[in-house]
Parts: sequence; C-alpha cells; structure tokens
Amino acid sequence: QDNLASLLGKLKELLKNQDGHQFPVTNTLSCTSVKAMGTLASCPTGMTATGCSCGFACGSWNVQNENVCHCLCPVIDWTAARCCKLA
Amino acid sequence: QDNLASLLGKLKELLKNQDGHQFPVTNTLSCTSVKAMGTLASCPTGMTATGCSCGFACGSWNVQNENVCHCLCPVIDWTAARCCKLA
Amino acid sequence: QDNLASLLGKLKELLKNQDGHQFPVTNTLSCTSVKAMGTLASCPTGMTATGCSCGFACGSWNVQNENVCHCLCPVIDWTAARCCKLA
Repeated sequence: QDNLASLLGKLKELLKNQDGHQFPVTNTLSCTSVKAMGTLASCPTGMTATGCSCGFACGSWNVQNENVCHCLCPVIDWTAARCCKLA
Repeated sequence: QDNLASLLGKLKELLKNQDGHQFPVTNTLSCTSVKAMGTLASCPTGMTATGCSCGFACGSWNVQNENVCHCLCPVIDWTAARCCKLA
Repeated sequence: QDNLASLLGKLKELLKNQDGHQFPVTNTLSCTSVKAMGTLASCPTGMTATGCSCGFACGSWNVQNENVCHCLCPVIDWTAARCCKLA
C-alpha cells in the first residue's frame, strides 16, 4: 500500500537503519593470510582466496572450492593462502 | 522541486529499488580462476587479476592491463589467473 | 523527533546524497601493481596486498602488515605486490 502513512513508516525504518550504520553497505577490502604445513591451506569461513604462496620457492598452485590454496610442486613443506572478504 | 509530492515520488522509487534489492550495494567478493596454455591467462570481462600462478614452479609474473596474468620464466607451460570482482 | 517535517528533512538530505552519488556505496574492485628492487614491495596507502610476485622464479612470500609483500627466497632481485581496494 502506497499511502502516506505506509510510506513514512518505511521511511522511518530506512532512516533508522541509515543512522545506525546497519545499511548493507560495504566499504573495505579486508585480507588475511593463513599458513599451514603440507600442500593445502584453507581460508576462514566467508573469505575467498586471492592468491597462494608455497614453500620451496614453488609458484605453481591452484585454488579449490574458491577458498583452499593447493600448492602443486612435488616437494612442498608449507602452503599459505591470501584470503579476502568485504567488511 | 522539493514539494511533498515530488519528494514522495522519489521516496517511492527509492523504496521500490530497496525492496527489490536493486540498490547499487555490493556485498560479496567473488573470485574465479582461469588457466591457459602458454604465458598468458586473461580474466573474464569485469574481473581483475589479484594474483597469478605459473607452471614449472615459477613464481615470477606480472599483470597486464589489470586483467591478464603474464608468467615471466623462460620456460612456462601454463599460466593461471586468479580473478575477482564485486558481486 | 519523528514528525513529518523532520522526516522530510532527512529524506531530502538522503535523496540529495543519492542523486549526487555521495552515498557510501562501493561498486568496483580496483587493483594495481607495485614493483621494487629487493625483497619488499609496499602497496599504496589504503590498498591491501592480495598476492605477491618475486624475481628469480620464487613463489615463496608472505604479507607483512596486510600491505607489504615480502619474498622469502635466499636470492631475490625484485618483489612485486598486487594491491587492491574498493573504489
């Protein structure tokens, strides 16, 4: 219904969220690193892998399921995932 | 014009978009990988490269035009781009 | 105060910002690369490192303070940071 009362009700709700910064607006790219022994390193829940680093100088990797770094060289001691999300 | 009618007209439009989730608000970082033979791998349109992976263990690369991964080692069999966008 | 005048005042302000694109809405992931001699490369202020590239084919690196790439191989001539932010 589009009468004035319902509009103002929605407006009040909108402005309340706006004032309380609960509006679903994101404004920062937040990243962290996760390092693990072996060939796999998993990002925390809600984060996606933007890049991977591997032990033994290895630069060959892929990303599984968008959030797990997998180093591909025959000998790997550690794997690190660079993980990002909007916050 | 700032009379009540025009304000409410704009408000209705604003709330309509708000309800339909058409407000230009982004809330997810979405990434994917693209692998190609050779030394270059291009991100899909609208995505930017956040990191690159190279065959033969190579960790030397650069990004061309913000969306193409270029592996720099003398011998490279494949190149992979990690590509992200807001969605 | 929630009377009509104050609501409409807030509404006018909201719509003005909306029209002028000053609403705090982000809609692009913007990335750039920074290359430096040695083992460290720093992202510009306000950007975070999403991945790193190293000279001499090295694929082992970490990120310091979320915005500095650090290549970890014994011999490194250059380091490059892939840096991103919302814009």
